[in-house]
Amino acid sequence: MSKPARLPKGAISPREAVLRMAPYSPPTAGRADKLRLDFNENTVGCSPRVIESLKQQLDAGGLAVYPEYGAAKAAVAEFFRVPQDQFIFTNGTDEAIQVFINTYVDDGQEVLLLRPAYAMYRFYAEVAGATVREIDYDGPAMEFPLAGVLDAITPSTRAVLIANPNNPTGTGLSLAAIERILKRARKAVVFIDEAYFEFSGVTALGQIERSPNLFVSRTFSKVYGMAAMRLGCLFSHPANIAYLHKAQSPYSVNTLAVLAAQAAVRDTAYIENYAAEVLAARELLCDGLERLKIGYVPSCANFVLIRAGRRAVEICDQLRGQGILVRDRSYEAPGCVRITVGTREQTRRLLGALEEIWLQR
Amino acid sequence: MSKPARLPKGAISPREAVLRMAPYSPPTAGRADKLRLDFNENTVGCSPRVIESLKQQLDAGGLAVYPEYGAAKAAVAEFFRVPQDQFIFTNGTDEAIQVFINTYVDDGQEVLLLRPAYAMYRFYAEVAGATVREIDYDGPAMEFPLAGVLDAITPSTRAVLIANPNNPTGTGLSLAAIERILKRARKAVVFIDEAYFEFSGVTALGQIERSPNLFVSRTFSKVYGMAAMRLGCLFSHPANIAYLHKAQSPYSVNTLAVLAAQAAVRDTAYIENYAAEVLAARELLCDGLERLKIGYVPSCANFVLIRAGRRAVEICDQLRGQGILVRDRSYEAPGCVRITVGTREQTRRLLGALEEIWLQR
Repeated sequence: MSKPARLPKGAISPREAVLRMAPYSPPTAGRADKLRLDFNENTVGCSPRVIESLKQQLDAGGLAVYPEYGAAKAAVAEFFRVPQDQFIFTNGTDEAIQVFINTYVDDGQEVLLLRPAYAMYRFYAEVAGATVREIDYDGPAMEFPLAGVLDAITPSTRAVLIANPNNPTGTGLSLAAIERILKRARKAVVFIDEAYFEFSGVTALGQIERSPNLFVSRTFSKVYGMAAMRLGCLFSHPANIAYLHKAQSPYSVNTLAVLAAQAAVRDTAYIENYAAEVLAARELLCDGLERLKIGYVPSCANFVLIRAGRRAVEICDQLRGQGILVRDRSYEAPGCVRITVGTREQTRRLLGALEEIWLQR
Repeated sequence: MSKPARLPKGAISPREAVLRMAPYSPPTAGRADKLRLDFNENTVGCSPRVIESLKQQLDAGGLAVYPEYGAAKAAVAEFFRVPQDQFIFTNGTDEAIQVFINTYVDDGQEVLLLRPAYAMYRFYAEVAGATVREIDYDGPAMEFPLAGVLDAITPSTRAVLIANPNNPTGTGLSLAAIERILKRARKAVVFIDEAYFEFSGVTALGQIERSPNLFVSRTFSKVYGMAAMRLGCLFSHPANIAYLHKAQSPYSVNTLAVLAAQAAVRDTAYIENYAAEVLAARELLCDGLERLKIGYVPSCANFVLIRAGRRAVEICDQLRGQGILVRDRSYEAPGCVRITVGTREQTRRLLGALEEIWLQR
């Protein structure tokens, strides 16, 4: 959607917080027939068992019935090895962020974010009318600015949102660093977004019981290949979960999404194989980038942020011309392009096209 | 979820607005094998064409891809005879209410509601920290209290939310009455929830272009038989839509939900037949209630609120024992039970069971 039309006579102006917000419209149309290396999705699709299970469910009926989450919750809890009262299902990670902010952050309170980071942290903080403070990832490796974050946490800090690994930098964070943040931010709620956990292996999920200010999110949109289904999980201490539950719509998650998750967690081999393939492909991509002398940020996730300098937009456009989608991130990381890592075969195709474009000058 | 556990040492207390809220946990488990007359769903299921279309989509793949709404938006716009810039898809009507409130209502502003009404109006108003003012439906027919609402609208009123027909009363509102409210509430935003429109035929959708403070919601959860899919539409003037869009997550709606809607609006005969069946069944139900001398509120929707007095809970329990679910609404309408109207056959079964219970004293 483009910029708001002029308000007609008699229209009511929205809240100041909404007026101030920048519109966020990620480019998602006409992607179907392309090699999609632009949204960090699973590039080969979800487990065939998920499709099979959904088709059976469709035959069994039940679309007319409001969602029931019980059976799926039990299966997913077992998979994550947590009790059922330590998480809620969310409508993608987006709703996890929203419910977290709505439960804890009042108008005018301070929310600490990293920059660049996933746009929806800032989005929901702004909708809530919060004051956003941002600490930059910097240096050539865009390492997590731990000292800066620890310094920035003050008694005024109400919430801290961190992605581990971070998007779009791919930067990871150690468990020890998270523990230091949790200790420093004793008076704040801390949200660790683990959307790309399966590629890094570092998780704060084991800290839930002893860190009552910790919230961890996971998603089925990335390695699980279910971005279309919109399903996430938000984990925390049961006492916190009860409050999150109060601020959440009782039916925000689609029935087919939880049924798909139930099938997905039964096929762990599929996920493990895909994650292993991505790690091998990421190595291939980084080797290729080095050969071409294209700078990049070392990544713990299924994407790599490359330094294309002034050629960022050109590279994205030319790749698109060859049916390959990557994402220009110049607006938040000057000269940078984010490339999703899929299979080795897809990576070879990408590298071939990139080499041709890169060397033609 | 039961009442919040005691917060562990070191936990952060949520916002005051959340602490004050009553938990809302509608009873939705173990409904699958019962005659479900408790949630105003379509009791025979969605169009078989919806199921067919979804199965084809599953075969075609695409679950790994973030939602694209373009084609579905075009089909749904054509069906509702509105331009595409006059509505957004929402994750059920719940998200329509939430985005509306988040776009227009600031902490402490006044929101005017009816009572009893759909619980989520109050829910999202409270999450936003709004001050809620409620006007009662009253009298034996629980007519819409137009004079009371008009009186209650003051320069402090920021938003008015009305369901037409209303749930759980079934009470309808004329277009002329809505126009009076829109005029009186010139400085407020007015939300008309038309979840049950297909049973009443009265809609404010035609007023969108000339009433810049009007917002209308529709849903695919009721007559369309797609409650599991969570899909709604929120209509307003394009200038307002642009603001709503700013405050909405870009991927809140599941891909299969919009594909299902695309198929559903191609099978209008199915919906018209079902709505006609419900109207015939509602007449049958009301005749039966009169025969049994059970009072009820005249309804414009696919449910009837009956006056069971002190026997409300007993009736619900005994019907459940016979595999029929209805909904006790005593907590908001003393002595009242809400019965969803399905087919005539289902209504006969309900009436048979109800008669047996009602006469046994």
